[in-house]
Amino acid sequence: MPSYKAPVDDTLFLLRDVLDYGRYGNLPRFGEAPLDVVEAVLSEGGKFAEEVLQPLNRVGDTQGCVREADGSVRTPKGFKEAYKAFAEGGWVGLDGDPAYGGQGLPHFLAVALSEYTIAANLSFAMYPGLTNGAAAALATHGSDELKQRYLPKMTTGAWTATMNLTEPHCGTDLGLIKTRATRQSDGSYLLTGQKIFISAGEHDLADNIIHLVLARIDGAPAGTKGVSMFVAPKVLVNDDGSLGARNGVACGSIEHKMGIHGNSTCVLNYDGAKGWLVGEENRGLNAMFVMMNAARLGVAVQGLSLSEVAYQNAAAYAKERLQGRSLTGAKAPDKPADPLLVHPDVRRMLLEIRAFNEAARALMLWVALSEDEALSSPDANARKLADDRVGLLTPVIKGVFTDQGFANAVKAQQVLGGHGYIAEWGLEQFVRDARITMIYEGANGVQALDLVGRKLPKDGGRAITAFFGDVSAFLAADKDDSALAPYLAPAKAALGQLQQATMWLMQNGMKNPDNAGAASNDYMHLFGLTALAFMWARIAKAVLARQAAGTSDATLDSKLTLAKFFAARVLPEAGACLARLSSGAETVMALPAAAF
Amino acid sequence: MPSYKAPVDDTLFLLRDVLDYGRYGNLPRFGEAPLDVVEAVLSEGGKFAEEVLQPLNRVGDTQGCVREADGSVRTPKGFKEAYKAFAEGGWVGLDGDPAYGGQGLPHFLAVALSEYTIAANLSFAMYPGLTNGAAAALATHGSDELKQRYLPKMTTGAWTATMNLTEPHCGTDLGLIKTRATRQSDGSYLLTGQKIFISAGEHDLADNIIHLVLARIDGAPAGTKGVSMFVAPKVLVNDDGSLGARNGVACGSIEHKMGIHGNSTCVLNYDGAKGWLVGEENRGLNAMFVMMNAARLGVAVQGLSLSEVAYQNAAAYAKERLQGRSLTGAKAPDKPADPLLVHPDVRRMLLEIRAFNEAARALMLWVALSEDEALSSPDANARKLADDRVGLLTPVIKGVFTDQGFANAVKAQQVLGGHGYIAEWGLEQFVRDARITMIYEGANGVQALDLVGRKLPKDGGRAITAFFGDVSAFLAADKDDSALAPYLAPAKAALGQLQQATMWLMQNGMKNPDNAGAASNDYMHLFGLTALAFMWARIAKAVLARQAAGTSDATLDSKLTLAKFFAARVLPEAGACLARLSSGAETVMALPAAAF
Repeated sequence: MPSYKAPVDDTLFLLRDVLDYGRYGNLPRFGEAPLDVVEAVLSEGGKFAEEVLQPLNRVGDTQGCVREADGSVRTPKGFKEAYKAFAEGGWVGLDGDPAYGGQGLPHFLAVALSEYTIAANLSFAMYPGLTNGAAAALATHGSDELKQRYLPKMTTGAWTATMNLTEPHCGTDLGLIKTRATRQSDGSYLLTGQKIFISAGEHDLADNIIHLVLARIDGAPAGTKGVSMFVAPKVLVNDDGSLGARNGVACGSIEHKMGIHGNSTCVLNYDGAKGWLVGEENRGLNAMFVMMNAARLGVAVQGLSLSEVAYQNAAAYAKERLQGRSLTGAKAPDKPADPLLVHPDVRRMLLEIRAFNEAARALMLWVALSEDEALSSPDANARKLADDRVGLLTPVIKGVFTDQGFANAVKAQQVLGGHGYIAEWGLEQFVRDARITMIYEGANGVQALDLVGRKLPKDGGRAITAFFGDVSAFLAADKDDSALAPYLAPAKAALGQLQQATMWLMQNGMKNPDNAGAASNDYMHLFGLTALAFMWARIAKAVLARQAAGTSDATLDSKLTLAKFFAARVLPEAGACLARLSSGAETVMALPAAAF
Repeated sequence: MPSYKAPVDDTLFLLRDVLDYGRYGNLPRFGEAPLDVVEAVLSEGGKFAEEVLQPLNRVGDTQGCVREADGSVRTPKGFKEAYKAFAEGGWVGLDGDPAYGGQGLPHFLAVALSEYTIAANLSFAMYPGLTNGAAAALATHGSDELKQRYLPKMTTGAWTATMNLTEPHCGTDLGLIKTRATRQSDGSYLLTGQKIFISAGEHDLADNIIHLVLARIDGAPAGTKGVSMFVAPKVLVNDDGSLGARNGVACGSIEHKMGIHGNSTCVLNYDGAKGWLVGEENRGLNAMFVMMNAARLGVAVQGLSLSEVAYQNAAAYAKERLQGRSLTGAKAPDKPADPLLVHPDVRRMLLEIRAFNEAARALMLWVALSEDEALSSPDANARKLADDRVGLLTPVIKGVFTDQGFANAVKAQQVLGGHGYIAEWGLEQFVRDARITMIYEGANGVQALDLVGRKLPKDGGRAITAFFGDVSAFLAADKDDSALAPYLAPAKAALGQLQQATMWLMQNGMKNPDNAGAASNDYMHLFGLTALAFMWARIAKAVLARQAAGTSDATLDSKLTLAKFFAARVLPEAGACLARLSSGAETVMALPAAAF
C-alpha cells in the first residue's frame, strides 16, 4: 500500500531561507501569518492529508463514482465523511474572504497546503479545488447579489462548484460553443445544451453544486466574442438562502476514464436550467479566465504533488527491496542481495525526480507568493511586476510541471519493476492519475502556445524582460562568491540559452507564425529548465549560507548534491530544446495532410 | 473506436529497397520465400490482424480474464474462437520446424507479421508469442523425447506455453529463486514453489499449457549457478501423446494490472507438480536465455507495434477533428474550424512518432534477417557476424523501442486531448498496454546494463567494432553523392557521438563500474538514436534511387521529409545523452541512502 508524508520542513525551508519570506510582511494578510503560524497550518493540514485523505486514494480508484438510475452520483466510500471533516476544519476557505466565512490567510498558504492534499488524494482534492477557482471568478466578476447568494456556502465548503466549458465538438476552441442561453423576463436565463468532461459535476459530498457555465445568449455574435458566463446551481437557492427546487441540469453519464476515478467526471445535460449572467454579456471568456488561471496553477501543483508522492513510494521500495549486487561489490553481504538503491540507474531515476521536485516546489511557492503580491501589495509597481510574473510563469509551470509530473510517476513506477505495473503498490494509479494533468485546463500544447503567442509579446515583452532581469540580478549579486560559483554557472548557461531562444522567436516567429508554433513546446521546456536552474542556484545559496552560519544538517547538505545532479544530468536537455526549436517550422509543416 | 491498418507496403519497401532482400537468397528457407510469397503472407496475416484481432482488443481490455472458483481462467469473449482460427491458419508455426508441423518459412517473416498481430491486439498476441519462445528453448536444449512430446502440439498452436521465472521476492535477480525441484526415481522432478507475473499462465484457449520453469534442484549450489530449467505441463501427457491427469500446478489468482487485461497474468502455485529437466542440471539460466532473447526481441516489436497503432489513430483524429484556426490563416474557411493537423505542435507530436516508426521498422527487420543469417547462413563468418549483431542490438531495441513506444502512445493520446483520456477512443488503452513493455523480459535498466556490461566488452568489443564498421562503410560508399549527403550527415554525426561515448565507457567504466551503470541508460538511447539515424540514411538512399529511376510516389517521397525531421527534431537528443553520460557517476552515487 502506498504512503505519503507531507514535506512540511522543505516547504518551510524554501519560504524562510530561499524565498525570503520576511519581504512579504508588508502585504495585508501576512501580518497574521508569521512563519510559526504557517508551520502550524501546514503541519495540521499535512496530517489531515496523510491520515485521512491518503488512505482513501486507492479506495477512490477502485470504487470510482457511481451514477444511480435517478442521475445522482455516489462518491467512493469514505469520501463523504472526509469531505465533511475537511470543510468543517476550515480547509476549503483557508485563504477565503472573511466576509464570506473564509480564514483570510494568504493565498500562497492555500497553494502550499494544496500540494499535500493533492499528493494524498488528487481525486478528492479536485472537489474543493474547483470550488475555490469558481469562488475567485464569482468574487471578481459576479454582482453583489450573486456573491451574497453563493460565496458564503462556497467559501465554507458547504457547497462545491464546477467549470463547464467543454462540449462534445469543442474543447480548446471555445468559439464553437453551442449551449444556448435564453433571456427570461426576470433577468435570468434558461440554459440548454450538453457539457462534457465536467469534473465534480455531480456527487453526494455537498448539498448543492454551483456550475459556472459558458453559453451563447440567443442572437450573440459567432465565435468567442459571443460567449457569456452564467452561474447555474444544481439546486435553486431561495432568496432567504434556503434550498428550493432542483434546477434543470442533470448528470447524463460518468465518463470512463484512465484515472482520477474518485472524481466524478460527468456529462451534464442542461435542459432549460436556470442561470444568471456573471459579468458582462459576451465577455464570458474574460470572466472564466479568472477561474481558468487559478485552475492552471492548481494543475501545475498537481504535477508536483504526484511527482512527490510517487518519489516517496519508489524511494522507500528501492531502500527495502533486495535485488542484485552493487557493481562495486556487495554492500549488504549479510543479506541475500543488496537494496535496489545501490544500482546507479535506479538512483538516476530517483534523483531525476527529486531534482525536479525540490526546485519545482520553490518555483511554485515563488509564483504563489507573487499571486499574493499581485493581489494585494500596497505598491502599484510591485503589483504590476508580480502580475506579469504570474502571467508569464503560469503556462510554463502548468506545462512543465505536468509533463514532468507524469514522466516522474512513470520513472517511479519503473523503479518497482513488475510490482509497479500491478495495482496493489499504487504506482500505476499515480501514473494514470497524473496523465490527465497534461490535458485538462488547456492541453500542454495550448500552454506552450499561450506562452510564445501571448505572454512573451504582451506589453512589448515586459514580463520576459523582467524575468531575465530577476535571474541576471541574482547571478550578478554573488558573482564573486567562489563557493557559490559552481551553483550559479548552470543557471547562467541556461539563461543564455533561453535568451538565445527568445531572440530566435522574436526574429522568426513574426515572419512566420508556424515557426513560433513549431518552437513552442521546446521553448516552454527550455523556460522550465531555466527557471528550475534558477531555483537550484537560490537553494544552493541558502544552504551555503546556513552552512556558513554553522547550522548545516544532512537534509540540507543533500541539496548541494541535488543541485549538482540537476546541472550534470537534467540541464543538458536545454541544449537539445534550443537545437530543435531553432531548426524552424520547415520540416514540421512540409508533409501534406494526405501523407499523415 | 480505434482501428488499425497493417503497413504491408512499408514492410515490403524496406525489405526490397532498403535491406536488399535478395542478398539473403542463399539462406535455406529463403528459396521458398520470394518477395511475392512474403507479400501474400503479410497481406493475409495483416488482414487477419485487422479484421479478427483488432476488434477484440477493447473487448479484452474491458472484460479481462476471469478466474473461476475452480482455478480455471476464462479469456475475454471471442478470444477462443480467434485463437482457434489463428492456430488453424498456421500462423503460430509460420517459421516453425516442418518436422513438427511448422510452415518452415524464414524467421524474419514471423517477426514482420508479429508487428501487425501485436498492433491489433497485444494481449492476444502474447499467447502464441510465448509459445514460440518456449518452442525455441525446447528445440535448442530439450532431449529428443521432450521435443517429440511437446513440439508438435506447440508448433501448431494446439498447446500454448509460458516462461516461469519471477517469484514474489525476485524478478531481475534470478539467483534468489526458491522454487524447489525434487528428483524422483523415474527421472522426473517434483516442483514446489510460487511463481508470479506469469503471462498466459492459465486460460481456456488451448487444451494444454506447457510451462518452462526455473527451479533449484535439492542440494544445488546457491545463486544463479544452482538454477535448472524444467518443463511442466498443465496436463500430463501420456506416452501415446494423449492427455492424462492434471498436473500439480494451479492458478492462485490473476494479477490486477494497469493494462494487457486480455492476457491472463497469473500467480502459479506449484505443489509437487511433475517436471522434466531441460538441458543440463544447474544450467537453467543458459537454457532459458534462448527463450528470453526471443522474448526480448518480441517485446521490442511490441514497442513499435503500439507506437504504430497509436499513430494511426491519432493521425486520423487530427485530420478529422475541427478545432481552432491555423496560425497562418484559415485553411478550411468553409468549416467552423480547421482540422487539428494545421497546428504545428500537433504535427510535431505525430511526426516524432512517425519518424521513429518507419526507421524502427527497418531496424527490426534488419535484426530479424540477421537472426535468420545467424541461424542458417552457410557461411560461418556470416553466421558469427550476424549473431554478434543480434546480441548487440537486442538490448538496444528492447530498451529503446519500448521506451519510445510508450512515449509515443502518450503523445498520440495527447493529440486527442480529453478524448484521449477516456476509454471509448482506445488511446488510453494503448498507453496502459505499452507501459508493461518497458518492464517485462528484463526492465529497460537491465537491458542498458546488459548492453554496457556484457555486449560491449564481449569478445574484445568485436560486435560494436563490426557495427561501427557497418555504419562507416555505408557512409563511405556514397560519400561523394551530393544528393544523398544531407541524409548521411546526421548519421555520421550520431556515429561520432556514439563512438565518443563508447570511448568514454572504455576509459571510465573499467576504472569504476558505477560509471558504466550511471551511463547505461543514456548510452542505450544514444545507441538507439544512432541506429535509427543509420536506418534513415539507408531509407533516404533507397528513395533517391527510386526517384532517380523515375518511379517515385508520394508515400516514398514523404520519407525524405521524415528523414530531415528526424535529423532536425529528434537527433539533438543524442548530444544531451552524451553530455549526461560523460558527467560520470559522481553526482549519481554521492547521496547517502538515508537521504533518499
